[in-house]
Amino acid sequence: MFEYSLGKTKSQLVLKHAKVMNVFSNEWIEQDIAIQYGTIVGVGAYEGETEIDLTGKYVVPGFIDAHMHIESTLVAPEELSKVLLAQGTTTILSDPHELVNVKGAEALDYVLQAGRNTTLDIYTMLPSSVPCFDKDTNGAGEFTAAQMSAYIDDPNVIGLGEVMRVKDVVLEEEKMVEKLDLFKDKPIDGHAPNVSGKELEAYRFADILTDHESSTYEEALDKLRCGFYVLIREGSQAKNLEPIVKGFLAHGIPFTRTAFCTDDRHLDDILNEGHISHCIQKAIALGVDEFTAYKMATLHPATIYGLRRKGAVAAGYQADLVVLNDPKTVAIDCVYKNGHKATLKHLKAIEPSEDLLHTVVIPEVLKEDIQIKRRDKNHVIEVESDSLLTKHVEEEVPGYVYFEPEAPYNKAVVVERHGKNGNIATAILKGFNLTQGAIGSTIAHDSHNMILVGDNDDDILLAAKTLEHFQGGYVLVQNHEVKHIIPCPIAGLISTQKAQVVSGLLKELKEDAHKMGVPASLDPFQALSFLALPVIPEIRLLDGGLYDVVQEQFIKP
Amino acid sequence: MFEYSLGKTKSQLVLKHAKVMNVFSNEWIEQDIAIQYGTIVGVGAYEGETEIDLTGKYVVPGFIDAHMHIESTLVAPEELSKVLLAQGTTTILSDPHELVNVKGAEALDYVLQAGRNTTLDIYTMLPSSVPCFDKDTNGAGEFTAAQMSAYIDDPNVIGLGEVMRVKDVVLEEEKMVEKLDLFKDKPIDGHAPNVSGKELEAYRFADILTDHESSTYEEALDKLRCGFYVLIREGSQAKNLEPIVKGFLAHGIPFTRTAFCTDDRHLDDILNEGHISHCIQKAIALGVDEFTAYKMATLHPATIYGLRRKGAVAAGYQADLVVLNDPKTVAIDCVYKNGHKATLKHLKAIEPSEDLLHTVVIPEVLKEDIQIKRRDKNHVIEVESDSLLTKHVEEEVPGYVYFEPEAPYNKAVVVERHGKNGNIATAILKGFNLTQGAIGSTIAHDSHNMILVGDNDDDILLAAKTLEHFQGGYVLVQNHEVKHIIPCPIAGLISTQKAQVVSGLLKELKEDAHKMGVPASLDPFQALSFLALPVIPEIRLLDGGLYDVVQEQFIKP
Repeated sequence: MFEYSLGKTKSQLVLKHAKVMNVFSNEWIEQDIAIQYGTIVGVGAYEGETEIDLTGKYVVPGFIDAHMHIESTLVAPEELSKVLLAQGTTTILSDPHELVNVKGAEALDYVLQAGRNTTLDIYTMLPSSVPCFDKDTNGAGEFTAAQMSAYIDDPNVIGLGEVMRVKDVVLEEEKMVEKLDLFKDKPIDGHAPNVSGKELEAYRFADILTDHESSTYEEALDKLRCGFYVLIREGSQAKNLEPIVKGFLAHGIPFTRTAFCTDDRHLDDILNEGHISHCIQKAIALGVDEFTAYKMATLHPATIYGLRRKGAVAAGYQADLVVLNDPKTVAIDCVYKNGHKATLKHLKAIEPSEDLLHTVVIPEVLKEDIQIKRRDKNHVIEVESDSLLTKHVEEEVPGYVYFEPEAPYNKAVVVERHGKNGNIATAILKGFNLTQGAIGSTIAHDSHNMILVGDNDDDILLAAKTLEHFQGGYVLVQNHEVKHIIPCPIAGLISTQKAQVVSGLLKELKEDAHKMGVPASLDPFQALSFLALPVIPEIRLLDGGLYDVVQEQFIKP
Repeated sequence: MFEYSLGKTKSQLVLKHAKVMNVFSNEWIEQDIAIQYGTIVGVGAYEGETEIDLTGKYVVPGFIDAHMHIESTLVAPEELSKVLLAQGTTTILSDPHELVNVKGAEALDYVLQAGRNTTLDIYTMLPSSVPCFDKDTNGAGEFTAAQMSAYIDDPNVIGLGEVMRVKDVVLEEEKMVEKLDLFKDKPIDGHAPNVSGKELEAYRFADILTDHESSTYEEALDKLRCGFYVLIREGSQAKNLEPIVKGFLAHGIPFTRTAFCTDDRHLDDILNEGHISHCIQKAIALGVDEFTAYKMATLHPATIYGLRRKGAVAAGYQADLVVLNDPKTVAIDCVYKNGHKATLKHLKAIEPSEDLLHTVVIPEVLKEDIQIKRRDKNHVIEVESDSLLTKHVEEEVPGYVYFEPEAPYNKAVVVERHGKNGNIATAILKGFNLTQGAIGSTIAHDSHNMILVGDNDDDILLAAKTLEHFQGGYVLVQNHEVKHIIPCPIAGLISTQKAQVVSGLLKELKEDAHKMGVPASLDPFQALSFLALPVIPEIRLLDGGLYDVVQEQFIKP
């Protein structure tokens, strides 16, 4: 290969006369980029078998998402690959936490295989916290260190995914210690919202390297000081970039140990606003200098995760390049992945196993299974606007012997859907305001049981039956008819359809849910997905019943 | 250990109320540092079994020398450990290039064993370029990849030492390829003075990670742009800090991918001016901000070499700490290594093997062996002031049949001293101006043959005999009497005496050499040591004869 670097032999491709961002020296330099076998062999003055004139264009390294869950996009890796490449993202650090919660090693095998199939580089951080909560029923049970060890030599498995069970870490719970030991020489992602002081010191002492859960400048600074790399998250729901970036800028805190991530970002936001490109653009708009902003999307995450061939335009680096018309606005002209222009060519997707396509196993749900006895005061989950938080209220609710879901109340039902115990749990929901129908989903963090909300039992039962029939996804029932269904048969989490199709369906689904009364301040399916996540205060509905997050116990009726 | 981080159990030692430098956030924060078993377990508010009040003091991480040759200090690792710790250096990246040139694996075994014995942390980069030059006779011959592979799992061997043979790299010379392959996942140090353009691209393409040979801003920038980490060198002879730092500051180039090193720094300079401490102080004086200057000595080199427990004062990091009275001037109050206050306590040194103490094997050198036939014009090595460069001149010299070394001329003699071939070579030297005697050394880069300079043959022969008797070192003979000898019996390179003794002897030796005529602008023993190094222009004396560095060939008389 040295003959290409030395210019003795022409490289396959030379991009000529571009203004190249040098992430080491913080300069734009007009240069040629010589590429052979997908790798940059030299930057300077080169001739190539093929030469492309990029006069007037800017070239930066391909963007890296430091932490994301593919599942949140609802599309399969092959489809996501096209979507992200178009936005300049050439590498992601993926944590298949949702898939593995549903189907363990079998789901992991699928997503690793699909990841090898994509043009996008997908590196996997093995989910560390499956289940993330013991009182909930997931499909896979515990994903243990012993199971993980089978994957430790996979070149695409590069670390341990976000360690959510902070107490297990600092109290040296045996199963967690085994996982941390297995990854002791590799990057370990953290997940420590609102953890601080000595507990944070202990968590860092466990060699946890990153955290992406800071939502304020103060929390991010605290993590940074402690030695964590701060992954600044700009997802669909959690938008932390502005407060953190503003704080860093105002106080002169260096961005050298920060990187961008999206965590959970939906397809429509990716298609409409961009992905990591959106983070860069937003950071620059807030006053971060161009070089720093692009480095937070390139060199920094590459350094954190030890991806030494990524994150720069220089000899020896992978030819993952974004060609820009304007760096300030991240106006993308085209994207090169491994030296080839990324196209929207369809990739033949990996077929998931039959098992992975049949994960929704529920009991027959009858009306009498979902009755809620009315009392003088009933426990009620009140959803909050523009937030994933809920309030625990106790109040009188409509009905006689049984609760009758009249405005502003709805009935919420969780059905264990992994064929484990057939649990059915119900709750009274306030503030969701759905009328004349029901919606349902098999995507419900983190155990992904079936969750349904409606104003009448018939529609709730129809929604459940429909989700069972399609083996998962999102459903909307109006006046006893299925109006929309987005089948997500891969583990009940992911669609096999094209991004544009899924995106279009989602839009209609949301619009109709709003028309049926869900307030504009709530994303109906997001609210639904998090209604069963027992780590966000104050009250949640698990398959085992109503759960008081603050008291850490189930609520007796 | 988590009970200490959590503050549930008191740590052995807590340093209280210090202003602690946070290298992640660029802040001074008044905090306590809790230390258990040599490791920092937490930073914040802690109580300890022992508490030391550091009110008014500053604490920074221990300093790291990113690249140095222990041999240049003339003292053994145990002695050097004390010297460097007193200057705040707690870790060095050592390249035992000189020792291995003389005695191969046996010398390496010694220095690794001695390194395990020191309080100072010594990490070894295995010498990649032994010999660095094929036309010269060293003691060890080639130090091959096969030999290196025996050391690859040694926890103190962390990379491949400076790769001097640039052409071998880019032309894929087989033996070099083997060495690079062996270290393909580890740090590889470079050595590429004046290499630029496509050759530099190719050299970087070989995954060579660092370079410490830049002597100007422009050269350093060139290396930085190319992707090399720039190690800014401030040795005794090569002082590159000022031009590079000034240039970076003037042009707003970031220091994020730079670190300090000393390469070759002499004992007297270390004792009088400091070590890495001197680099920090000098950088701050030139206008580098405090945080950046300290990070170039701590976090940056730790990052480059993957020393993930070093370079910061934070939970999980080694308790290698420098306590300062004033950070601007690097005024050191005391130093902690692995949580213990570093003392000047004498360490019992590792005994080198008998073989390693007997490396000076020369033939009997007679007067007739060192006669130089006088011609109309003789080739002359002219030494330059304040430089290691030499000029190749051809001129008439004193004498009749044979050259007679009268002022400003001297005679230079190289005697092969590894018992390989008994080569003796001579040259005419101008500008050294030594009168009434001779000086000699067995330290002569990189093959370390015996080199002698004098104004009369008797004194030259006496110097040779004395060096043979003491098995190496530095000698000064005046008027047929041995006036000074610094024995360096370890491979003929290193003394077994204490630093203060060696330093005192060196001072006297130099003073007397200057009194005997060597100009003040020349360090007599440095000039001597480099007179045989065939990679610095224009002309050198090897055991095989006079060598024209520019033409890359031996000179016929």
